[in-house]
Amino acid sequence: MELKAMNNLMTKFSNRKNQLYGEKEEGKKVFGLFCSFVPIELVLASNSIPVGLCGGKNDTIAIAEEDLPRNICPLVKSSYGFKKAKSCPYFEAADVVIGETTCDAKKKMFELLENLVNTHVMQLPHFKDEKSLNLWISEVEELKELIEKESGNTITEEALKEAVDKVNKMRKLFYKIYDLRANHPSPIKGSDTLKLFQFAYLLDINDTIEVLEELIPELEDRVNNKEGYTGKRILITGCPMVAGNTKIVDLIEECNGIVVGEESCTGTRQFENLVEGYTVKDLAERYFKIPCAVAYKNEERIKRIKELVKELNVDGVVYYTLQYCHTFNVEGAKIEKELKEENIPIIRIETDYSESDKEQLKTRLEAFIEMI
Amino acid sequence: MELKAMNNLMTKFSNRKNQLYGEKEEGKKVFGLFCSFVPIELVLASNSIPVGLCGGKNDTIAIAEEDLPRNICPLVKSSYGFKKAKSCPYFEAADVVIGETTCDAKKKMFELLENLVNTHVMQLPHFKDEKSLNLWISEVEELKELIEKESGNTITEEALKEAVDKVNKMRKLFYKIYDLRANHPSPIKGSDTLKLFQFAYLLDINDTIEVLEELIPELEDRVNNKEGYTGKRILITGCPMVAGNTKIVDLIEECNGIVVGEESCTGTRQFENLVEGYTVKDLAERYFKIPCAVAYKNEERIKRIKELVKELNVDGVVYYTLQYCHTFNVEGAKIEKELKEENIPIIRIETDYSESDKEQLKTRLEAFIEMI
Ligand code: SF4
Ligand code: SF4
Ligand code: SF4
Ligand code: SF4
Repeated sequence: MELKAMNNLMTKFSNRKNQLYGEKEEGKKVFGLFCSFVPIELVLASNSIPVGLCGGKNDTIAIAEEDLPRNICPLVKSSYGFKKAKSCPYFEAADVVIGETTCDAKKKMFELLENLVNTHVMQLPHFKDEKSLNLWISEVEELKELIEKESGNTITEEALKEAVDKVNKMRKLFYKIYDLRANHPSPIKGSDTLKLFQFAYLLDINDTIEVLEELIPELEDRVNNKEGYTGKRILITGCPMVAGNTKIVDLIEECNGIVVGEESCTGTRQFENLVEGYTVKDLAERYFKIPCAVAYKNEERIKRIKELVKELNVDGVVYYTLQYCHTFNVEGAKIEKELKEENIPIIRIETDYSESDKEQLKTRLEAFIEMI
Repeated sequence: MELKAMNNLMTKFSNRKNQLYGEKEEGKKVFGLFCSFVPIELVLASNSIPVGLCGGKNDTIAIAEEDLPRNICPLVKSSYGFKKAKSCPYFEAADVVIGETTCDAKKKMFELLENLVNTHVMQLPHFKDEKSLNLWISEVEELKELIEKESGNTITEEALKEAVDKVNKMRKLFYKIYDLRANHPSPIKGSDTLKLFQFAYLLDINDTIEVLEELIPELEDRVNNKEGYTGKRILITGCPMVAGNTKIVDLIEECNGIVVGEESCTGTRQFENLVEGYTVKDLAERYFKIPCAVAYKNEERIKRIKELVKELNVDGVVYYTLQYCHTFNVEGAKIEKELKEENIPIIRIETDYSESDKEQLKTRLEAFIEMI
């Protein structure tokens, strides 16, 4: 079963590098991002290019470990390693990196990264209260000024409105795909949706929208014909799985599981909640809602996981932690307890980008999927 | 060579449990603390008892690991484990725990701890800028209200003034001891000063002051007589070494090293900077200055380390990281680089509370101390 839209996605992805460098030559600035909390609308509204730079590959970890501790999250090491090795064309294209104070490892990594590239760090507060929202709003306002300065373009009301509408449009398309995946059988594999989420951080947003608009009717056809995938229905929740990292989804789908949802920054956290208005404040408010484990008392997340389990008819939850990610790891204990209280099967996986634990993980996942 | 004041310290420490429970029976409330950022003046001014609860023992780590990941800092696990095992009389005495959002592991641990004990968490911002200071001031104001509510006592201006003066007095005495340690030979061992810092978190502040006032003339005598310790002069910098954890200082002083300073929360960060005024804002401002690695761009710390190296005539720096403490670990890379540029010898040690790496650490420390 082939999806034409997925082929289109792959074509667009293989053209992306040339397209990006072409736009750069025409004078556009490239802003490198590391987190779902950074409002891409502001970058787009300045006629610049946002590009996600989180590293998902093992290759660059060794060089990163020359500067960074071994025992921090592979995503942070891989990202930093790409810059140090100058081996990621997207990273090399970035004129400015926008960091954020999400977790300890990333926050402190940016202190080293700024020796290698122009870096601006946003303060994401720890709390979800009013005071913290106000701080965040002022951080987003400062980001706007910075982007204007670095891009040389004023962000007009009109341009911001256009960007907000466009990103919201993309979000709505992702929502639509989520709805379609609620069907039995699920019309698309998790390994394909993961590619969508991963490449959406890299592609031109117009291209992402094009792919999603092509994909939706294909999936609707499948749903109407009751075609698709019928394994045990899995929700993944936890740390992001960024481009280069497909390990766990691949393993699940090798074991008669079908991933029907991702409560993740390569998943729901990437598109849920629309921006409700056209001011910087509206923007900040939307992003502030993202239920990431880095927040103290991230209660929305567990609520959302329970909803997704129902909405997507999930058989079991795979809680995914990148090794040494303290926030998602500790939050996992809470979530495991709450899901077990509602008799929702859950397995917790902690892993990195290496291949060494693959067999062991496969055995555990097989047993879990068989059991549920 | 015996210091009478140190004997007095030990006596006071062994009486402390009874004294504390006695005061509790008379109606005083006990507030448990986990970080140098929490202003003890507010607790004292409410006629309540502040007590540091950070765990320094390996014994309680196994029980903590039932809920918490293995790969987080031993201090966090040990602390949580003491509560879970109900095995720390100070923790059991605490009516309220005041937590803070310093690092990932501690921040998220408090979410679990609140199931075991009444817990209030303060938001410590990531940045050191004006906006963040304002947020912190409002957090300290909220803490004042919370302490008033929980203790049942209003914090009067007068009581706050008295508390500020008293804690400042203790700080000045610690400063004085620091000055005395600048002498050759150093009049006191690092293992003794570590006890002072550790027990100061547990003792009644009047008792700590009494010990310090007794100690200073003893040390002055030694300085006048050129008595004391003459090994290689070591500055320790990094994570706190809380009661129960004396591993590295002991090892250094077994290897012909003498610890003459600690840039640490069991050291300078505990007492440096006086509160300059009597308002809650003055209080918040003093604490906000603490140069902890959890801050993004903690530039004060490296400055202070370089000053201490000069002031205390240090031969070498031991950079101490508790295992899996990302912030101190990553900051260590920056600090190592800067010290090496100034030809200041530095060795980085990462360890936990177990005994298993003791021999290996001893070998490394021996080699370092011989070399400098
Ligand atoms: S998981 Fe949290 S810190 Fe990581 S990208 Fe998502 S929102 Fe940002
Ligand atoms: S996975 Fe966890 S540790 Fe890694 S960057 Fe995201 S929040 Fe930080
Ligand atoms: S090292 Fe930092 S987080 Fe730890 S007690 Fe000190 S100030 Fe608090
Ligand atoms: S030593 Fe580091 S990880 Fe441990 S509690 Fe302190 S700041 Fe957190």
